[in-house]
This record gives sequence, C-alpha cells and structure tokens, in this order.
Amino acid sequence: MQLGVCYYPEHWPETEWSSDAARMREVGISKVRLGEFAWSRYEPNPGDYHWNWLHRAIDILHAEGLEVILGTPTACPPKWLVDQHPDILATDEQGMTRGFGSRRHYCFSSEIYRQHSKRIVREMAQQFGDHPAVVAWQTDNEYGCHSTIVSYSAEAQRAFRLWCSEQFDSIEALNSAWNNIFWSMEYSNFDAIDVPNLAVTELNPAHRLAFWRFSSAQVASFNAEQVSILRKHSPGRDLMHNYMGNFCEFDHYPVADTLDVAGWDSYPLGFLDRDNENAQSRIDWLRTGHPDCAPFHHDLYRGVGQGRWWVIEQQPGAVNWAPHNPAPLAGMVKYWAMEALAHGAELCSFFRWRQHPAAQERHHTGLLLPNGEPGPAFQEVKEVAAEIASLGGVASVPKTPAPVALLFDYVGNAALETQPQGVNYDPQGWTQALYRALRRCGVDVDVLPIGRALEGYQMVILANATVDSPELTQQLINFEGTVLIGPRSFSQNVHCCTPDTLAPGSLQSLISLRVIGAESLPDAVPMAAAEYTAWRWRERVQSAIKPEALFEDGWGFHYRQGKVHYLNAQLQDDSLRRFVAHRLKEAEIVVRPCSPGLRYTQRGSLQYVFNAGPASVSIESPSGEQDLAPGEYCHWQVV
Amino acid sequence: MQLGVCYYPEHWPETEWSSDAARMREVGISKVRLGEFAWSRYEPNPGDYHWNWLHRAIDILHAEGLEVILGTPTACPPKWLVDQHPDILATDEQGMTRGFGSRRHYCFSSEIYRQHSKRIVREMAQQFGDHPAVVAWQTDNEYGCHSTIVSYSAEAQRAFRLWCSEQFDSIEALNSAWNNIFWSMEYSNFDAIDVPNLAVTELNPAHRLAFWRFSSAQVASFNAEQVSILRKHSPGRDLMHNYMGNFCEFDHYPVADTLDVAGWDSYPLGFLDRDNENAQSRIDWLRTGHPDCAPFHHDLYRGVGQGRWWVIEQQPGAVNWAPHNPAPLAGMVKYWAMEALAHGAELCSFFRWRQHPAAQERHHTGLLLPNGEPGPAFQEVKEVAAEIASLGGVASVPKTPAPVALLFDYVGNAALETQPQGVNYDPQGWTQALYRALRRCGVDVDVLPIGRALEGYQMVILANATVDSPELTQQLINFEGTVLIGPRSFSQNVHCCTPDTLAPGSLQSLISLRVIGAESLPDAVPMAAAEYTAWRWRERVQSAIKPEALFEDGWGFHYRQGKVHYLNAQLQDDSLRRFVAHRLKEAEIVVRPCSPGLRYTQRGSLQYVFNAGPASVSIESPSGEQDLAPGEYCHWQVV
Amino acid sequence: MQLGVCYYPEHWPETEWSSDAARMREVGISKVRLGEFAWSRYEPNPGDYHWNWLHRAIDILHAEGLEVILGTPTACPPKWLVDQHPDILATDEQGMTRGFGSRRHYCFSSEIYRQHSKRIVREMAQQFGDHPAVVAWQTDNEYGCHSTIVSYSAEAQRAFRLWCSEQFDSIEALNSAWNNIFWSMEYSNFDAIDVPNLAVTELNPAHRLAFWRFSSAQVASFNAEQVSILRKHSPGRDLMHNYMGNFCEFDHYPVADTLDVAGWDSYPLGFLDRDNENAQSRIDWLRTGHPDCAPFHHDLYRGVGQGRWWVIEQQPGAVNWAPHNPAPLAGMVKYWAMEALAHGAELCSFFRWRQHPAAQERHHTGLLLPNGEPGPAFQEVKEVAAEIASLGGVASVPKTPAPVALLFDYVGNAALETQPQGVNYDPQGWTQALYRALRRCGVDVDVLPIGRALEGYQMVILANATVDSPELTQQLINFEGTVLIGPRSFSQNVHCCTPDTLAPGSLQSLISLRVIGAESLPDAVPMAAAEYTAWRWRERVQSAIKPEALFEDGWGFHYRQGKVHYLNAQLQDDSLRRFVAHRLKEAEIVVRPCSPGLRYTQRGSLQYVFNAGPASVSIESPSGEQDLAPGEYCHWQVV
Repeated sequence: MQLGVCYYPEHWPETEWSSDAARMREVGISKVRLGEFAWSRYEPNPGDYHWNWLHRAIDILHAEGLEVILGTPTACPPKWLVDQHPDILATDEQGMTRGFGSRRHYCFSSEIYRQHSKRIVREMAQQFGDHPAVVAWQTDNEYGCHSTIVSYSAEAQRAFRLWCSEQFDSIEALNSAWNNIFWSMEYSNFDAIDVPNLAVTELNPAHRLAFWRFSSAQVASFNAEQVSILRKHSPGRDLMHNYMGNFCEFDHYPVADTLDVAGWDSYPLGFLDRDNENAQSRIDWLRTGHPDCAPFHHDLYRGVGQGRWWVIEQQPGAVNWAPHNPAPLAGMVKYWAMEALAHGAELCSFFRWRQHPAAQERHHTGLLLPNGEPGPAFQEVKEVAAEIASLGGVASVPKTPAPVALLFDYVGNAALETQPQGVNYDPQGWTQALYRALRRCGVDVDVLPIGRALEGYQMVILANATVDSPELTQQLINFEGTVLIGPRSFSQNVHCCTPDTLAPGSLQSLISLRVIGAESLPDAVPMAAAEYTAWRWRERVQSAIKPEALFEDGWGFHYRQGKVHYLNAQLQDDSLRRFVAHRLKEAEIVVRPCSPGLRYTQRGSLQYVFNAGPASVSIESPSGEQDLAPGEYCHWQVV
Repeated sequence: MQLGVCYYPEHWPETEWSSDAARMREVGISKVRLGEFAWSRYEPNPGDYHWNWLHRAIDILHAEGLEVILGTPTACPPKWLVDQHPDILATDEQGMTRGFGSRRHYCFSSEIYRQHSKRIVREMAQQFGDHPAVVAWQTDNEYGCHSTIVSYSAEAQRAFRLWCSEQFDSIEALNSAWNNIFWSMEYSNFDAIDVPNLAVTELNPAHRLAFWRFSSAQVASFNAEQVSILRKHSPGRDLMHNYMGNFCEFDHYPVADTLDVAGWDSYPLGFLDRDNENAQSRIDWLRTGHPDCAPFHHDLYRGVGQGRWWVIEQQPGAVNWAPHNPAPLAGMVKYWAMEALAHGAELCSFFRWRQHPAAQERHHTGLLLPNGEPGPAFQEVKEVAAEIASLGGVASVPKTPAPVALLFDYVGNAALETQPQGVNYDPQGWTQALYRALRRCGVDVDVLPIGRALEGYQMVILANATVDSPELTQQLINFEGTVLIGPRSFSQNVHCCTPDTLAPGSLQSLISLRVIGAESLPDAVPMAAAEYTAWRWRERVQSAIKPEALFEDGWGFHYRQGKVHYLNAQLQDDSLRRFVAHRLKEAEIVVRPCSPGLRYTQRGSLQYVFNAGPASVSIESPSGEQDLAPGEYCHWQVV
Repeated sequence: MQLGVCYYPEHWPETEWSSDAARMREVGISKVRLGEFAWSRYEPNPGDYHWNWLHRAIDILHAEGLEVILGTPTACPPKWLVDQHPDILATDEQGMTRGFGSRRHYCFSSEIYRQHSKRIVREMAQQFGDHPAVVAWQTDNEYGCHSTIVSYSAEAQRAFRLWCSEQFDSIEALNSAWNNIFWSMEYSNFDAIDVPNLAVTELNPAHRLAFWRFSSAQVASFNAEQVSILRKHSPGRDLMHNYMGNFCEFDHYPVADTLDVAGWDSYPLGFLDRDNENAQSRIDWLRTGHPDCAPFHHDLYRGVGQGRWWVIEQQPGAVNWAPHNPAPLAGMVKYWAMEALAHGAELCSFFRWRQHPAAQERHHTGLLLPNGEPGPAFQEVKEVAAEIASLGGVASVPKTPAPVALLFDYVGNAALETQPQGVNYDPQGWTQALYRALRRCGVDVDVLPIGRALEGYQMVILANATVDSPELTQQLINFEGTVLIGPRSFSQNVHCCTPDTLAPGSLQSLISLRVIGAESLPDAVPMAAAEYTAWRWRERVQSAIKPEALFEDGWGFHYRQGKVHYLNAQLQDDSLRRFVAHRLKEAEIVVRPCSPGLRYTQRGSLQYVFNAGPASVSIESPSGEQDLAPGEYCHWQVV
C-alpha cells in the first residue's frame, strides 16, 4: 500500500509548491491527488483556457518523484457557465432550483452540461493525458454528495420520460407493470409521466423506484462519458471515482464497471455522528469512529472495485462538517492507515495536505496547519510510512475470498427505502448489523454484488436482496455452502410488486415457505423467540417446515432446510451475533468472539488485530499474550 | 348490523370476480363498496366512457345476492384531466402546486373541476342509479385525507373573496368585525383580501378562522352538488360519505345534513400511532388500539348521521400507512365488529377484500392474501357473522339517548386550533379526555352538535363550544339536568373576538362569573387544587360565587351555581375521571369504574362488555363472574 | 425613572380616550408611546392623509400632562401600498415572497419602500414634530422581529452587489479576500454575485457573513433616513428605537449611533421559553423569568444607548406569543420595574394599556382588561410608582462604570453563527454564560462594544470578539486591569479567514500562544482539567507558557501571562463560575456568592438586592438580616 495526499496548489503561492513536494516525499507520500475543484482557474472565461499553472505544479511534483491522480473538475462548474445556462442546475424535491455558491450544482440530465463536461475533460485530458507523472484520473468528485443524485428539473423530466419509454414497449405495459390502475394513476402516453415530487401524498412506489433507477443510470452514463474521453486521451492510466461512506443513493456497481479502481473517502469520526441508531455509540467511539465503520466500507468497496480500491481521502484530524467534530485519539491516523492496508487497499491518501485558512472547510484539519507548519497528524503519517515499508510488498496481496460473502444490492436497498413499511426499518442499518455480527465473531467478510461468483465461500448471506432474481436462485441452488436468507428477501419485483407466489419468490425452490404477513414494530416492543430477541420487523410464515422456535404469540421463528436458513425477523444486535455465530459454527468457520472494539483481519499471510477501545484488551499472539490499548493494533505472519 | 367489504374488481382478472362474490357471500358479507378509485377506467380518454366492465362486475355481485355501495370517483381525477386543466390542482400553504401521482389532487374551489365532478357523477348515476343491486352511494372518498381541505390556489382566493363579500355588507364591516385596525391590516375592498398564507408572522386569527369556515363550506357545497345529481338519478338510495378518524379539518355536520348515513373509516392500530400524547399508550394498546378510539368515533358519527352510521372501512390486519404497523391481537377483527354493533352501527365493512400486491397500499392487509388465499382475518369475519346472526335483529335498535350528551363543535375546535395560546392546548385531545373520563366511569355517551335537542339527557357537557351561542344558552336555561361547562367555552365570537362581558359570554346567565385572565403551562408544571391536578390551561375567574377549591396561589377552582358547573382548567386524566365521577353521581347517573381496558356499552336491551387489555379482567355478569382476556368481550340481555 | 405605557387610541372609541388619559396619570404614568401601527388610519388611501384623530388623541394626553413618544408607522405598510408595489415585500431563504397579513412585510433594500418610508415619516413629523407633548420618537418597531432583517429579494440582490462593489476595489480583490478559488467560486464581475440562498450545500462563510453585514447595514441606513427627517422636523426630541431581547441578527451599535436613546422590549417570561439550553430552567423560573435575563439586556442596552436607555415595552402579565404563557408571580410587575431602575433605566413603559379583545395579540395582558376594568397588574404599577417617587431623583444616576466590562460584538457573534463548527456552539449562550457567572459572583457588569473606552474598569472580558482587531489589541496593551480572553477570540478576519499567525491573531502580543487545533464535542462528553469541566469547545494551544492545568489527554488548559488570561475552552456553568470568581478575586474585585435567584446591583449610591427565587433567601443588609421571598427585593443607601 502506498500513501497519498490531496493537494490544492491553486490555494497556495507558487513559491511554496516545491517545498510542499519535498515535504510530501520526505514524509513517505508517493501519490498526490489534485485538480478536481479548479475549473475557474482552468477556464476563467468561456473558452479561455489556462493550463500552464497546472503544468508547472505537476512538473514540480514529478521532479520529486511523486505520482499524480488528476481530478476532472466537473463537480464545480464556474459561475459564468451557470449564468450562461441556468438550466444546467438541478431542481430539488420542492421544485426549487439548487443554485451556485457551493459545489455539485448541476443536473445529471442536463444535455448542455454534459457537453461542457465532455469538453473540459477532453481539454484537460489532451493537456495532461500522457504526462509521465499522471498515473490515474479521478472522475468528478463524490457523486451524490449533498443529495445530488436526484433532480426534479425539466431536463430530468424529459430524460425520465425517454428512459421510461425505453423500458417498456408501450404505455399500457408500463401502466400494467406499475399497477397504475390503483388510484387511477394510468397514463395515456409516456409524455404524461412526471418526475415523482410534489404529489398530494405518497406516490406509487413503482414510480419512485423507477425514478431512482433512472437517476442512478444517469450517473453511470455521465461517468461513462468522461471515462470514454479519458481512455482515449490518457491510455494506460487507472480511472477511479471517489465514493462516499454510508451512501446508497445510486447503484455503484454499474459506475464501477467502467472504472479500474474504486476510491472511497473515509471519515470515521464524521460518519459516527450520522449514526442515529445509538446515542451511546457516538460517545463510546467518539475519538476512534465505530470499529466497523471503515472496515465495512473497505470490504464493500473492495467488492465494488473487484479487488482494486483506494482510500482516496482519509481523515487526518477533526473535520468540519459533522454535528460535532472531535479530535481523533492520538495514534488513530496510523491506525486507520494500517486498517486500510489490512483490508487490502492499494493506497491510503490523506485529505488534505494543508488546512485551508478560509472558506467552507476552514476547520477541516490537514497534515499541515494553515500556516504551513506540521500539524499533529504529520508525525503519525511519517511513522506509518516507515511501518508499511518495513512490512515489504503488502501492496499485492492475493485476492483470496473471505469465508463469508455478504450480498449487498443497491436496488434492493432502494426498494426498501422506497417502501419501508415502518419508520425504523433501515435497510443500510440492517446490512451493517449483519456485518457487525460477523466481525464480532472474528470473521472476515467480502461484501459483494448479486451476480459475482460465489466459489470458495463457505457462507452466503442475503442482506437486502429485495428484488426477486431467478439467476441468483439458480446460483444458490448450485452453491454448496450455507445460505442465510434475511427478511424481505425476494419480496418483490423491480416494480414493487409482490411475487405471485408471495415472498421469498423464486427462493422457494431453496426453502419451502412463504410469507403471508408482516409487521413493523416500535423499538420499545421487542418480541422473544427462544434465546433470540426480534424487533422492528417480523414476518408470518406459512410452511410445512417446522420453525426452529416460536414467538410468544405462536408465530414461527427461523426456518431451515438443509444448509438454507430463512431468518424471518430483524434481531437485536446481541441476538443477531448469537444467531450468526451458530450459523458460522455449523458451517465450520472459525469463530473468535471479540470484545466491542477488537477486530481480527487476515490479509494474505498477515494477521492483523485492532483495538478501537473503549478498554484495553489482552490478546493471544504467536509471541504470547499482548495488551492492546484503545487505538493500538498489532500484526503477525500466519504460519 | 350487516357485514360488508371494499372491493376493487378493476384490480383483478374478470375471471376471478365470480368466485370472489361467492366467497363474500359464504363468509357472511352482504354489502360491497366499489368503484371509488376507477375514473381512469370509466373514462380513459376525454368523453370516452367505458361502463360495461362495471356493469358486469355489479351483475356478478348481484347474482350472488350482494348489495352494492357505489363510490363516485372524484377523489382521483385522471391524468389527462389534470393535463388539460392544471389549475384544478390545489396549492399548499407554501404556495406549491399539489400535483398528480397519488390521490385527492384537486382544489374544492376549482369551478372547472366542479363541472367535471358533476359530469362524471351524472354519467355514473345514469348508468347505475336504478340498478337493483345498487342500494347506496358514497360521495368521493375521505374528504380532507392528506390535509386536502384547504387550498391556497388562485381559484381558492377568488372564491374566498366572494365568500367574504357574502358574509359582510361592506368591507368596512369586515374590517371592523376582524379588528383589522390592529397592525394596519385594513382592506379597501374585498378584492384586496388574500388567502392566509405566506405572511411574515401569525396572521389575524379572524382571517384564518374565516378561511377555515370558507374551506369547510366549499366541501359542503362540493358534496351537495354530487348529492343533488344522485338524488335525481338514483332515487331511494342511501347517500353516504366516509369520514375519517381524529379529523376536524372541516365541519362534518353541514356535509352530513344532505346525506342519509354517516360512514367512517376505522383503523384503531393506525390511529394509535398518531397519539402523540402518551408514548406508553402506543405500547399498551399496540395490538388492540386505544379502548376509546373506535368507540369515540362511533358515538361521534352516530351523532353526525343522526343515528344512521356505518363503519365503511374496518382494519382487518396490519395497515401500511402508520409509522409502525403491527398485526392486531388474534380476535380483534371480531372484537372491532362487535364493538361497532354495540355502538349502533348498521354496517361494518372491511377494507379490503384482497391485499393488493403492489402500489401504495401493497402492505395493507386484506381478508385475502395477494395470492387470493384466505388471510388470518378471514376466519374471524366468518365467526363474527355467525355471532351477529345469532343475536337476531340488532340492526334496528331503538335510538334511546345515552345519559350524557357531550357537545362537539367543529368551528369551536377550529377556533382553538387557530389561536391555542399554548403549544400543548389540544382541543381534540381535551374533548377525547372528557370522553375517556366518562367511559372509564362505565357511562354511555352521545356526542352531539350544538343545536340538537337535549331532551332525555341527564347531563350536558360543553367540550369545545368556544363560540358564544345565545341559542345554546337559552336551550341550557331550559335544560333540567346537569350542565358542565369546560374551559374556554363561549370565549369569543366567530371572528375571534372576546365577548364584551368577557368569557363565558352569554353563559353568564347560567352561572355568574367571568374570566379575567388565563395561562398556558408546560406539562411539567401541574397546579393542584384540593384533590385535583390541573395542567396546561388555567383561568382566573372573577365571581361572587365561592369556588369549590383554591389553587395553591389563591386562584379559584371549579365554580358551581345550582346544577351548572364551570370547570376553569384542564385536568389531568386521573383528576378528570374523579371530577366527572362526582358530577355523574350528583346527577344520579350510575357509575361503574372501569379498569384501563374495560368498557361497558348498552345498546337497546343488550349489555356489552369489552376488554382491550392489557390484563385479563373479571366482571360480574348475570351468569356470574366471568373472565375476559385482552381482546375478549361478552354480552347479555338486560332485564 | 419614569413610568410609561403603550397605547393604541385607534383601537378604542374616541369617547374613552379622556378617561384613559386620566387613569394613566392617576396610576403614576408620565409617558405614552403611540402611533406605530396606524398607517392604515393615517393614510387609508394613497395620499389621502387623516391626521386629525391623532391630533385629538395627543391633545387629550397632553391635557392630562402626559408626554408622548410617537412611533413612525413603517413596520406596517398598508395593503394598498403592497398591492401597488408588490416588490416592496421581502423574500425568504426559500425564495418565497413574505406577504401581507401580519407586520414587518417589507424589504429593507426596496428603494420604493424607502421612498414611502421617508414620505410618511416626513408627513407625520411635519404634523407632530413641534407638538409640545411630543418629547420623543420611536423609529419603526422592533427591527428584525420575525426574522425580517434578511431578505433574498431581487432588490436585496441588486443592493448587495452594489455594497460588495463598494467594499472592494475589484472583483479580483473580493475573490481573493473571500478565498473564492476554493470550489471554483470565483466571480468575473460584481453582477455575478448572488444572495446566499438556495445553494446545494453550505455557502462560503465569507459570502454569508458579508451578506449579514450588508443586511445589517441596510437596517442602519433605513433607520438613518428616518432619523434625518425627524431631526429636521422635530428638533430637540429624543430619538429611540425599541430593540428586542436575545436578538443578534443585526449590529445594534451603528443603528444606535444616530439615535439618542436605546429602547428595548422586556418580556422575561416569554424569553424564558426560548431558552432551549435547560429544560429545568423553564420550570424553575416559570413565573419570574430567569434572574439574569432582563438584567443582561439592561446592561447590554445601557451600553448600546451609551448610558441612555428605556424599557419601552414591559410585560405586565401573560403574553400571547411564547410556547407557554404563564401568569407572572404576584409582585413581578413591580419587581421588573425596580430592576430596570436598579440597572439605570430612564423609563419603564408597560405594554399595553388595555388588553385587545381580538386579533393576533388577543391573549396579551394589558394593565386593563379588554372590558376596560383594571387587571391584576394595575395595582402593582400604582405601588411601584409610589415607591419610585419615594426614592427621589434616581433618574439621573451617575454613570460610573461597573468593575467588569464584558465586550460584546455583533459581527463576532454573527461570524460564530456563520461557522459554528459544532451544533451546540451557541455564541449568544456563551456570552450570557459569562454574564451569569459574573452576576452569581455579585458583581455589576457593563456590556460594551469593542472600541468603547476602558478606563476605570478592573477587568475586561472578550466574549465573542471573533474578528481580529489590532485597535483593540493596542487598547488592551494599554489597559492596566485583568484581561480575560475567551475561546475563538481573534480567530479570523471579517472575511472568515484564519490569521496568518493563527488565532488569537494580534492578541499574541498580549499573550504568547497560538491555537493549532480545536474540537467541538457533544454535551454528553465533558472534559476535565483540574477542578474545571470543559465542554462543547476545546482548543489545542501551542505555547512556551506552561498551562495552568492539563486535560486528561494532555492538552493544556488556561494560559496566563501577567494579568492576561486565555481560556481555551468553554466551561460548564459551575466551573465557569469558579473560574470567574478566581479571576475576580485576583483582580481584587469583591465577590459576593449568590444563590441561584439572588442578585446584587449597585446604581449610584443605592444598593439593590433581588430574589427571583425559587426559595426565600436571607441576606445581610445595613438594617440587619432580612428575608427575601421569591419575587421580593430591597434596597439601601450605600455609605
């Protein structure tokens, strides 16, 4: 794994660029991402390009032996472009234009903006595509940040109608698939279809999920346009996008399919404050982040990148954008870097080199203080660079599968968010609960899309596979390991229609049962079944199979047919951990129970152990018992 | 009481209609409501009517001996009509158009929509008005659902100005009545009056209450237009509208005056989650609903329908629209049906026959599963049908009054909501608190509008009679029983102006006191007076009458003059129950204290006892002591 | 100190004006404010002036020897003016027009409205400017009430662009000062600058703070226009504006600079309900208001008025606009008046004379009931008038400084609100926490703007001096007393840019340290350092100075260099009180620890002691030990 940094030469006097480059190299950094927010400097006036400054900046980095990841600047179209073409702006759900003044102020469906996106990327790629320092490109920046996937603009409406007409042979077919007869929502033609906002009450979920899929597809095609230009003018370079954490507003897999590397932006403390699940969690992990937060995303984006993934932005101190912005525990910058290494990252790049003294991110820590002196994280980066060097060639670890594949489906997730049927039904949260349960058992996990090969896994878990997929059913029939099917699996088609055979649809060929009812419950009303406590969601199952246990009111709990398990309720964390541990043991996967902050991760022949706290933990290592304080880790060669 | 069901033949293959009808009959259903959401099938294109399918559906039901309640389809104008006339849409308080895509997307003030409403009703009534199976009509569906009474559209503004000009002889008279001199709000002419939204801060309450009354009147006139057509083309049929629970956004009495029957849609579990009063209540009654929820509405709508009322939609399992959607306790479907019977319903109709596999109500339970097989409630309906049959002719019980009349005034309620003077002043909640107190004393209640005859009652209670009514004062002077006047009674005229003599205005001829001040208090600061605990609202009374008790700070509490009582504060539930019990005993009304879930109801010569839980209760019945588990009930003949 | 009252003759029959005036005089009132909401009666139609009724009203008051404070009516432009010029209305942050129907419906940037404002003020001043009864004018009413300082209208946009162009020599200079290169926010010309709303995410804080300063300047120039006319046509009269409590949405000092007197509107119970800090506080002080609420504002507005200040609206009972509106404890009306006296007010004027029976303030108490009879506060006013008279000439107390000057900066406050870096960072709350700590030590405080002379003070505290001011630094270098510098002092320039030398910027010449990082923390995670508990905000300081204590994680706490102290964290109330007490003792300022509701205030040679409760307190007075019940006060001559 290499270390990198995000750098904005346009923010600093040119006289300081050389010493910046020299210090980067000294601290152990080898890759620098730059350029993604500087359109107004590339083209301060229409067609008036200024590339020389960036040439000079890249040359200076190159002279220090640093490699460059160049960002296309389309997240920030300049004001003159917005003034020329106000209709490139997106429209929010309330129908208001989302204007200039921050970033991501464009609508993915704007044809005019797409022309300008292609133009500026082409110009930039022609300038820098074959520069020897440029080893990779980042397309745009954080697609969807600030809820920008969806736009309800006139352009989006036009494109959505077109998309609908491509999905269906006729408007009658759409009416039928969407069940528009319900409440007389039938259309006479495709041009009668509106974007799904500003209705009196809940819109047809089929309509809303279709719009979600359309919006997601717009991101993929926008990205593909840039990819196509970059492939042509900058051959041989890695193409990458920087995805975000806890973000499911578009389907990442089709976007990733045209790229080489999945990047993601890791802010463990910032993300913690988005955990509305558990107020105590925000206190316990205040200065470390939740022990499963970054790892989950590492494992997810490793799957998105088909093995190739980078942490392209790594928090190096307090950030500026969370409700509360604490400083990390001393040592966490090293810890997070090593954690990325342990999960197989090729690169860990810190955001940012130097704290900016002003603007929106004035309070966002950098490796340097605003005045250019080293900040608290600087020394930690130096140390972790040395440690990684001492470990040798860990960058190219073998891509052996983990014991467990957790299937994650963005469309399935969106389907549940479209029609949750209970305010506390959180499909992302449930997926992460399953992940946490596995990791507390000391087990490594691959998070995979539906459709990926399952050979080599001992267990497959369906977390949010809401949409019936006969192909997956067939794949699972052929799979020899344990299959754990979570609640609401295969409970609808992509048009939000329950299967004719009821849920779990085609999975009934794996396990003979059907869901005849369900209920959502307030958190304060758990339901017990034997040693387990269900909450929030519970399904009433009809089956000839005897349930493994009964709820207090006689509903069955947990159905098993051979190695196939149907879990017909959400379980509370403790129960879920016990339930998963039983399944792992039955599958003869080694379970190593972990304290709340302890995590085991094996990568190639290296075994890593991390302790996020809150207490010190004593572990058994080949060199004997070893104490890990909060924020500490260790590793050893597996024999 | 008959049993009914809501049925949507347009959702299912025509081949299944016959078996549906046969199974309805078999299960004990005799009435079927249909047709209210199918405009896009009646008229898929402008003027292109398709009635044959509905003829066939009705004929099939008729052939099985089922009677039909036909709904006019105006809650769901089709897309082509919206596209032709976008100005039929309503405008929300923020000034945004409330668009197509769900239901109730029309403005009551749209003249064009009224033309189309009359046209489609006339066409439909001409087709089916004299069909022998059609025994009743439902106008539209749930007026006001999704906050659709009020619209701030240009059409509403036009109509409101006209309405104002009809209320007053001159703009000067309006300015004076509304006290527009306050803050220089005076108008020069009626066309200067805007709809009351988008002002800088609180608008004149006179303006807002006038707009409420106008909006309410628009509903009545819209409904009356349909009634007039239906009377002409479908003579002799019962006309009904299906009102909602906990809904006070328009005055139901004037709407009901032109109809024959009051329908209402009963969802005890769904409504529970709207109770923000008491988080514990949402847990205690999770699977039964609050024991007074359906009964209050039964007693209210019996008054609205002047004795003739139907439960036209009865929850048969989990619904889809509440924050949490639990399954009912086993037996509750029977329980709810018997409860409706005990309160005098002529019909209890379940919503819906078969669960729809898709669209907005995909998760709403039906008597059948989406695949057409019987769901959990199916058997309960069968059982309750048999039980009702065994009771004989309970459908036509004598309309004897209950001992207590609780006066409920929609305008008075709206006046308090317009100017609550305390965030926790909830006039609906206070009315229901009075109802609960009475019912926990084992007493039957008639909820009545102001103006209904009071002969035969032993006690009259003014719950939200905010607007001074000299006619009611005169009626009460002639009334021989106990009069209990609640706080804020007669505290203003209809223009939100305090009486010259201060509150309680003309009621001062019944009891000689006046309110010289009032205060609203946070829930956490109760005020004690003798054995009672007041909260939220307390009035400072000036009177020669000695108060029955004193608050700790010397303000008086509870004034009595003969059989007339003035209660000058809101009381907490326990205190209110004791206060009411004292008044009942003084009035020689039998008090039977009830545990939290136990309720007595007498109808004709049948005494019913219901136990909603949460514990089993032992009661004395003519056949000896009897245990009622949660969700159980019993009944016996009164000798 | 004189007593006054707010009176609306236009609300009452002219026949009652004389008896009103007579009763005012009898009760001890000498000044009457009137006229500020009556534009629609001054000019019911364009150019059609009706001044006679106001002449008659003023003459009647004059005949009783009452003095008049006349309000300009610009807070309420009449409907015909709005209909003629709809673009005088303001636009809210969502882009919606803020319409007619309440008050303050104008945009400060509307040139047309400014013409009409000047016109009506000129007409009024010409009519009444030299009337012998008219001794003062109030400009407009409560600038900013209902969040009306800021408007996002087209007029505001035009004016903001102009203002920006006046602040900077070139657009390049603005781009540079605002650091617009960040996220490519650079402008090509001033006409490209938008008002800062409706962006995708957080706008540049430099942009937002500039817009705040612009909006504040618009208030000052609007006010100055009226002042200029009033000076010309009503020479020798005091000019005053009535500011509000807890209101920092514009810089009050520049507005006050052109006026003679600072007025403020004191509603201690209403304000209590705006305290979201502490739910218990809303209960403890329910009927008295928080003991530091009115005093803080008295001390603040004494500074704003450079010694001359009036309570122009004093709550005399329950109000109508808070979430809960309790009645005050008996005696509080006297208490509040005496408190104003003790803090140096020239006038305490009650709002309002007679409770209005209708409109928005129907439930707002007056000295008279709606029916014209005396209300509960009437007698208290009479008593306090007598008590004040008995104290002799307290109106012209010497303006000796308090021991402590607390510097309060509206721009600095706005800077922190623009970029709080933690949801619980409340700069107003922190300033008031400092004030409370001082007052609980029994110390008098002057709240002063930056720039006021500091001679005579023993201690200066920087509460929210966020913006680096080399002038203040120089002043403090020359200051001989104790300087206590709070967190975030001098942490930026006015364009939200961190000083090159880091915070605290130029203050580093007083104390040699710099802030190299900071963190915001949830309330639930306090941080201990020796005897103190910090929370919410903590700074990491780099300095050769040894900190006075260490936090548990090694960060330093509290730096001291001679008499200069840097407090690098927010402290919880108890800790802050101890911290302040130590500093006061070191500075040899007498500390008198006070129970929660006890407060000492010295004014001239009179020592006052107030007890807001909740319990009785025994104090030492020259005449021996004395008990003060809640709501009681006493005073004595200091020898």
